[in-house]
Amino acid sequence: MSQTIAILAPGAMGSAVARRLSENGARVLTSLTGRSEATLKRAADAGMVGVENDAIADADIILSIVPPGEAVALAERLAALIVKRGKKPVVVDCNAVNVDTVKRIAEIIGSAQAPFVDGGIIGFPPQPGGKSPAFYMAGEHAREVAVLKQLGLDIRIVEGPVGAASALKMSYAGIVKGLAGIGSAMVVAATQAGAADALRDELALSQPAILARLEVALPDMIPKAYRWVAEMREISGFLGPDHPASQVYEGFAKWFEHLAADAKGEAVDASLLKAFAAGAAQKA
Amino acid sequence: MSQTIAILAPGAMGSAVARRLSENGARVLTSLTGRSEATLKRAADAGMVGVENDAIADADIILSIVPPGEAVALAERLAALIVKRGKKPVVVDCNAVNVDTVKRIAEIIGSAQAPFVDGGIIGFPPQPGGKSPAFYMAGEHAREVAVLKQLGLDIRIVEGPVGAASALKMSYAGIVKGLAGIGSAMVVAATQAGAADALRDELALSQPAILARLEVALPDMIPKAYRWVAEMREISGFLGPDHPASQVYEGFAKWFEHLAADAKGEAVDASLLKAFAAGAAQKA
Repeated sequence: MSQTIAILAPGAMGSAVARRLSENGARVLTSLTGRSEATLKRAADAGMVGVENDAIADADIILSIVPPGEAVALAERLAALIVKRGKKPVVVDCNAVNVDTVKRIAEIIGSAQAPFVDGGIIGFPPQPGGKSPAFYMAGEHAREVAVLKQLGLDIRIVEGPVGAASALKMSYAGIVKGLAGIGSAMVVAATQAGAADALRDELALSQPAILARLEVALPDMIPKAYRWVAEMREISGFLGPDHPASQVYEGFAKWFEHLAADAKGEAVDASLLKAFAAGAAQKA
Repeated sequence: MSQTIAILAPGAMGSAVARRLSENGARVLTSLTGRSEATLKRAADAGMVGVENDAIADADIILSIVPPGEAVALAERLAALIVKRGKKPVVVDCNAVNVDTVKRIAEIIGSAQAPFVDGGIIGFPPQPGGKSPAFYMAGEHAREVAVLKQLGLDIRIVEGPVGAASALKMSYAGIVKGLAGIGSAMVVAATQAGAADALRDELALSQPAILARLEVALPDMIPKAYRWVAEMREISGFLGPDHPASQVYEGFAKWFEHLAADAKGEAVDASLLKAFAAGAAQKA
């Protein structure tokens, strides 16, 4: 029997996942009320079917794929739709939210008597013919979404309660995006002090793997910095307000905010980061 | 003619550098007034000659190698000794201090009419028969310490004014020690949330170079965390109080403070970091 999957919202990740699922034979529902022309087109291209809110609850599985700040509000909307139904869909939160937030979302979905899965996506949106990002799934209902594997997603079970997949996503992003954060801050400061060439040479000699990573990560980060601001605040929340390192991630949020504004404006820091990555450090 | 080098103080790095210099024929002076028995022994083993304060100024080159918080006070002490002399030694600040601090030290030494070099050490203390850490030297007098190369140190000139070598040291440490900071914070948090095994597996798949670095860096960091606290505050100062990322390094200072206290106490975090590095993540 064909599976029906609902994906909210049809953003860059959501629509790429939808395309993968529909190409593999799933019916993919979404909500398009009030969305832009560009979104309508992207959803149609991905094979998504726009339905009324009520019909979202008809899906076998609902994937929540939204910016971290919208995850709780979407869960409340979904719970209101699901609570009236006899047959309950499995609801998966795939968002970059912290453990406390996903536990709160689990309670909201649980209040509608629907099975809930804590998910976390690591990697880029699936490209046609390309590989899937890793979809980590945790919680007692995690195995109920195994069908997504036959539909072309790289589903991996994390042994652990609701929160384990989000903790994995937070800690992985905290390391990988954190390295882009410290690398960019130090490269900009070294360039301003006339030490960028020497920094590059010393990294090449003594930490070639870190330099290689920065060469990829710094240019990749620039157009994404604006999205990482909220994610860094989630990681700070993951550590908790009393944790000595939560300040580190608050600082990254501010730094990415600065880099996003710089990239939209005169791109002073953006161009020196690209120059460093390309092996030609600029003079301040 | 044999060179006379003074090194203050005869700590772990200072005495290892002294040993290298004396093995290569230099006379190495230091100040031992009020030092412990252990320090006297370490200095003697390294071939250092304890002299009165006044005689320190007889050296051709003085290397300042102290914890960052003591660098300015030592410069003031040295300036007071040097100002009375006709023949001036070259004074090199080798400490992990920020650019503003080293410029202040340059002024203090300049007030005694002595040539000043901004230095930065990257790497471990030289071991007998082993390689030297990199000694970066910047400023108009940097080439006046070239003799240290013949004496067995890996001297590298940074083209740039006083501050360039310290900026290199700050930015390099900000990346390498910063990665140990984010890695340790995330590994501890992931372990507490039951996601350490999954984090390790995902890093092994998608970021093997970062995982390999953390396997070395996390156990290496634990006994040094107490020393890194002041260095992280110097890096925060290097960025400046209004810099959006200075908070990141303030946060690292607090986190390393916590890890140092943990290591001296029940070593809860220390043992789970070692377990992660060894490939056997602990259950929380």
